[in-house]
Amino acid sequence: MSATVDLNADLGESYGQWTLGDDDAMLGLVTSANVACGFHAGDPSTLRATTTGAAAAGVVVGAQVSYPDLRGFGRRFLDVEPTALTDDVVYQIGALEALCRVAGTRVRYVKPHGALYNATRTHTAQARAVVEAVRAYDPSLPVLGLPGSALLAEAERAGLRAVGEFFVDRGYTPEGGLVPRREPGALLDDAGAAAERLVRMIGDGVVRAVDGTDVAVRAESACVHGDSPGAVAMAQRVRDELARAGVGVAPFVAAPAGTAS
Amino acid sequence: MSATVDLNADLGESYGQWTLGDDDAMLGLVTSANVACGFHAGDPSTLRATTTGAAAAGVVVGAQVSYPDLRGFGRRFLDVEPTALTDDVVYQIGALEALCRVAGTRVRYVKPHGALYNATRTHTAQARAVVEAVRAYDPSLPVLGLPGSALLAEAERAGLRAVGEFFVDRGYTPEGGLVPRREPGALLDDAGAAAERLVRMIGDGVVRAVDGTDVAVRAESACVHGDSPGAVAMAQRVRDELARAGVGVAPFVAAPAGTAS
Amino acid sequence: MSATVDLNADLGESYGQWTLGDDDAMLGLVTSANVACGFHAGDPSTLRATTTGAAAAGVVVGAQVSYPDLRGFGRRFLDVEPTALTDDVVYQIGALEALCRVAGTRVRYVKPHGALYNATRTHTAQARAVVEAVRAYDPSLPVLGLPGSALLAEAERAGLRAVGEFFVDRGYTPEGGLVPRREPGALLDDAGAAAERLVRMIGDGVVRAVDGTDVAVRAESACVHGDSPGAVAMAQRVRDELARAGVGVAPFVAAPAGTAS
Amino acid sequence: MSATVDLNADLGESYGQWTLGDDDAMLGLVTSANVACGFHAGDPSTLRATTTGAAAAGVVVGAQVSYPDLRGFGRRFLDVEPTALTDDVVYQIGALEALCRVAGTRVRYVKPHGALYNATRTHTAQARAVVEAVRAYDPSLPVLGLPGSALLAEAERAGLRAVGEFFVDRGYTPEGGLVPRREPGALLDDAGAAAERLVRMIGDGVVRAVDGTDVAVRAESACVHGDSPGAVAMAQRVRDELARAGVGVAPFVAAPAGTAS
Repeated sequence: MSATVDLNADLGESYGQWTLGDDDAMLGLVTSANVACGFHAGDPSTLRATTTGAAAAGVVVGAQVSYPDLRGFGRRFLDVEPTALTDDVVYQIGALEALCRVAGTRVRYVKPHGALYNATRTHTAQARAVVEAVRAYDPSLPVLGLPGSALLAEAERAGLRAVGEFFVDRGYTPEGGLVPRREPGALLDDAGAAAERLVRMIGDGVVRAVDGTDVAVRAESACVHGDSPGAVAMAQRVRDELARAGVGVAPFVAAPAGTAS
Repeated sequence: MSATVDLNADLGESYGQWTLGDDDAMLGLVTSANVACGFHAGDPSTLRATTTGAAAAGVVVGAQVSYPDLRGFGRRFLDVEPTALTDDVVYQIGALEALCRVAGTRVRYVKPHGALYNATRTHTAQARAVVEAVRAYDPSLPVLGLPGSALLAEAERAGLRAVGEFFVDRGYTPEGGLVPRREPGALLDDAGAAAERLVRMIGDGVVRAVDGTDVAVRAESACVHGDSPGAVAMAQRVRDELARAGVGVAPFVAAPAGTAS
Repeated sequence: MSATVDLNADLGESYGQWTLGDDDAMLGLVTSANVACGFHAGDPSTLRATTTGAAAAGVVVGAQVSYPDLRGFGRRFLDVEPTALTDDVVYQIGALEALCRVAGTRVRYVKPHGALYNATRTHTAQARAVVEAVRAYDPSLPVLGLPGSALLAEAERAGLRAVGEFFVDRGYTPEGGLVPRREPGALLDDAGAAAERLVRMIGDGVVRAVDGTDVAVRAESACVHGDSPGAVAMAQRVRDELARAGVGVAPFVAAPAGTAS
Repeated sequence: MSATVDLNADLGESYGQWTLGDDDAMLGLVTSANVACGFHAGDPSTLRATTTGAAAAGVVVGAQVSYPDLRGFGRRFLDVEPTALTDDVVYQIGALEALCRVAGTRVRYVKPHGALYNATRTHTAQARAVVEAVRAYDPSLPVLGLPGSALLAEAERAGLRAVGEFFVDRGYTPEGGLVPRREPGALLDDAGAAAERLVRMIGDGVVRAVDGTDVAVRAESACVHGDSPGAVAMAQRVRDELARAGVGVAPFVAAPAGTAS
C-alpha cells in the first residue's frame, strides 16, 4: 500500500498572555499547519513563533482565516457582507504571509476557521467571498475544506484547487456531514478508533457513520485538533497507526524547498 | 530649475462607518500615499478602496505602521517590547501588501505613524525594531522619516534606504525639529506661506524656524496632511506653487510600472 | 389636543478621532438619547461628553446596547450565545451607567442597536437574552423597541415596561414592519412629510404604508436618526410640526430630577 | 496576637476561549479579588463567573482597571491623556459593577493593573487621573496600591481611603520598592519563605530586602499572584502559615452583607 495522507491541525491560536495548544509538539506530528491570522487568535508574535517553528519542522503553513472575533474565538456566525469578507480574508492572508516570509516559508493554502468554516459549507455568498479573496491574492493557493461544501464547489468553479479533509475525531452523519458538536457521537475520544477510522477512509474511501452505516468520504488531508487536552496524544496515535498500516504522511502541497517533514 | 520633490500624505484612515479625510481628492494631488494598516485606522475594506484608488492614480503606496490603538488613533506612546513591535510591523506591512496586490500595486516604503513616528525619533530600541521589520520583510523598501531621527540612522545602519521628509505645515525649531503641537507656531494655516517655504527648502535646503533663523533641512519628500479640514486646499496650493516655481513632483521611489503620476 | 410624544435619537456614536453625528445639536431637539456603550461605537470619553451634554440639556439617557463590532458599527448579525449576550448587555449598561453617574444622570432605559435591534424583532432567544440582562440589572428600566417585536413581548413577559417606537423617516409595510433599507420607500427624505406622518400617528394611531394603505401603529416614542447628514434639520422640522399641531414633547420616562427638557 | 490581614489576588483574567489562573481555587483562599474589567483581560462572561464565585465565597470584589491592551495584557505603559484615562477607568468600574450587581455583590475598591499600577507609582498625572475616576464615581471606594506610591498619595489628597499592599512573592529593594521583574531576586519561589515574610511584616512592619537589610513596610493587604502555575499552592501555604502564626484573614473593607470569608 503506497498511499499517503496529509495531517493538518489548527496552530498559532495563542494570544498575548494566553496560551492555547502545544504548537511545538504538534509541529512534530502534522504535515500541514492551519495557522491563525489574528482575527480569532494569533497575535503577530505568536504567528512569528508558529511560522518559525513550522519552517524549522518542514511543516507546510496554511492561512486559517476567520471572522473578526477574538472574544468568541471565531466560533460565532457573523453576517458580514461578502465584499467586506473578501477584504478581511485578503488582509489576513497577507498578514500571515509576511510573518511566513520573515520565517523563511510561505502561505501555501487557505482554510476558513470555526463559524466561517461551518457557514461556508452552505452559505454560497460567503463561500464565494472567501474564494474570491484567494483567487485575487494568489490563484495558485488551494482551499482546504469539507468535501461537498459550497466552499470547495466555489473554489473549483473559480479554478482553484479544492482539497477535501477528513476529521479523525468527529462523528459523521449518514450523509457524510459532521455530527453537530452538541449531539451524541460528535466527538471521538478513543485515539485508536479514530486512527483506525482514518486508515479505513484512506484505504476504502468510507467511514462508519453514527448510525452504523458506511458513508463515502474522499479526502486528501486529515484534521487532528490542536487545542484539546489530548490533542498531542491523539495526533501521535494517528501517526503510529498510519505507520503501522503502511500509510505515509506528506503535505497535500509541495513542501517548502530545502525542508522535509 | 530641474528639481523635483515627492508629496506624501496619510490616507486610508477611515474605519468602518467612520470617514476621515478625502482620499479621492488627495490621490489627485500627492505622489506617495502613507496608507494605514488597520492598527490605528484603516479597516480592510478602507485599505482596499485606498490602494485601488492609489493604483488608478499612479500614486505610490507606503505602509503607515502604528502601535495597536484604534481608540487613540496611534497617537499615544506604547512601551512595547522591540520584538513585539517588529512582529507587529511585519504583520501590518503584509496585510497592506495583500490589499495592494489585489489592487494591482505594491507596498513600496514604510513610514511609522503618530506616536510611533515621534518615539522613533529618539527611542533607539523602537527605531531599530521598526527597521528590523522592514529589513526582514524586504530590505529593498525605503524608510520614510524625520531627518536626523534615530529611525533613519538605524535604517542606514541596516543598509536600508533612509528618506527624509519635510512637513509643509509644521513649524520648525532652530535645531531642525518640529515645534510640538501644543506650542505656538506648531501649525501653519497659510497654504501660500507653506508652499513658499517648501519651494525654498527644495531650492536652498533651509527653512525659517520659529525664532526667525534659518535652519538646514534636507528632504526628498514633503508631507501634506490628509485629515485636516483644509487638507485638500493646502495640497492643491502646494502643487500650484511648485508648478509656478518650476519644481516637478515625482515619487521618491520608482512609480509602479504602467502608471504615471 | 393634549398629546405628547417622546423623541429619541442615537447619540454618542463617535469613536476616538472619528466623529459621527452632531450630538450637541441633537440634544437640543430630542427628549431621549440612545447612547452607544462602546461595543459598536462610543469610546469612554465620547460617552462622558454625550452623557454630560444630555444631563445639561435634561435629555433622558438610554443604553444603546450592541453586538461587539466596531468595524461593522453593530450592523451585522452575530450568532452569539444567549448567556454571552446577556453578559455583554449587562457590561454595556454598567459601563454607560458609570459615565452617567459621573455626569449627574442615570441610564433610564435600554434599546438594542442595529443588527441586534433587527434580530430581536424575531429571534426569541436573543430577545430574551437582552431582556434578561435588563431584568437582572434593574427591572425598573423600560425596554425600547419595535411594536410587535419579540423583544417587547419578552420584556412584557418578564414584567418590564415595554415601550414601542415609531420611525419618522422609515417606510412602513402594510403589516406594520419597516421596509428593508435596500428596498424602494425605505427612507423618507422629506422632513415635512415625515413630521406630518408622526402627527397623524399620534392623533390617529395609523401610518400610511408604502402600498398606500393605512396600518395601525402604537408608539410612545418617535425615533429620529442622529447620524445622517440631514439629521438635525429633520429633527428640527419634526419639533416644529409637533408644536404647530399642539403635540408636546416629553420623555417616556420621568426626566431626571432638577432638569427640564 | 490578634492581627488580621487581607489576602488579595488578580482574578477574572481569562478571555473567551483562553483560560488563565484557577479562579475557583483562589476564591477559596483569598479575601479580596482584584477582578479584571475587560481592558487587559476578562470578557463579560468571565466577569460574570468570577463575580458570581466571589459572591458565593464571600470574597470582596475590587475593580482591577487597566490600559486598553488585550494583546499586551495591560503590561505595557500607554501614554494616555489623563482625561481619557479617567473616562476609561470610570467605564471599567461601571462595567464590572453591573456584573457584580447581577451576581449579588458590588465593586468595593479599585486597584490599577500591570503597567498602570507601575506607572502610577511615580506618574502623578496618571495617578491623579485614576483617583479622579474613583472620586467622581464613588468616593467611598478605597484605592489599593503600593505604599509610598503617587497613587496612594493622590488618593489621600482627594479624601479617598488609601490602602497599601505587600507582595508576598516579590523581592524588595532597600528603599521599600519592588525588585524589577528582570533582576535577580525579583520573585520568591519558596512559598514557605514568602509566608514567613508576610507574618514578619504583619508582626514587625519590616521585610528583609534583597541586600539583607530590613526595610519598613506598612500594608493592610497582601497580594498573592493568581496567574502563575504555583499560585494556588502559594496562596494555600500563606493561609496555613498565617493560621499557624495566629494571624486571621479578613477583607480590608467590610464584607458584603450576608456573607463570610
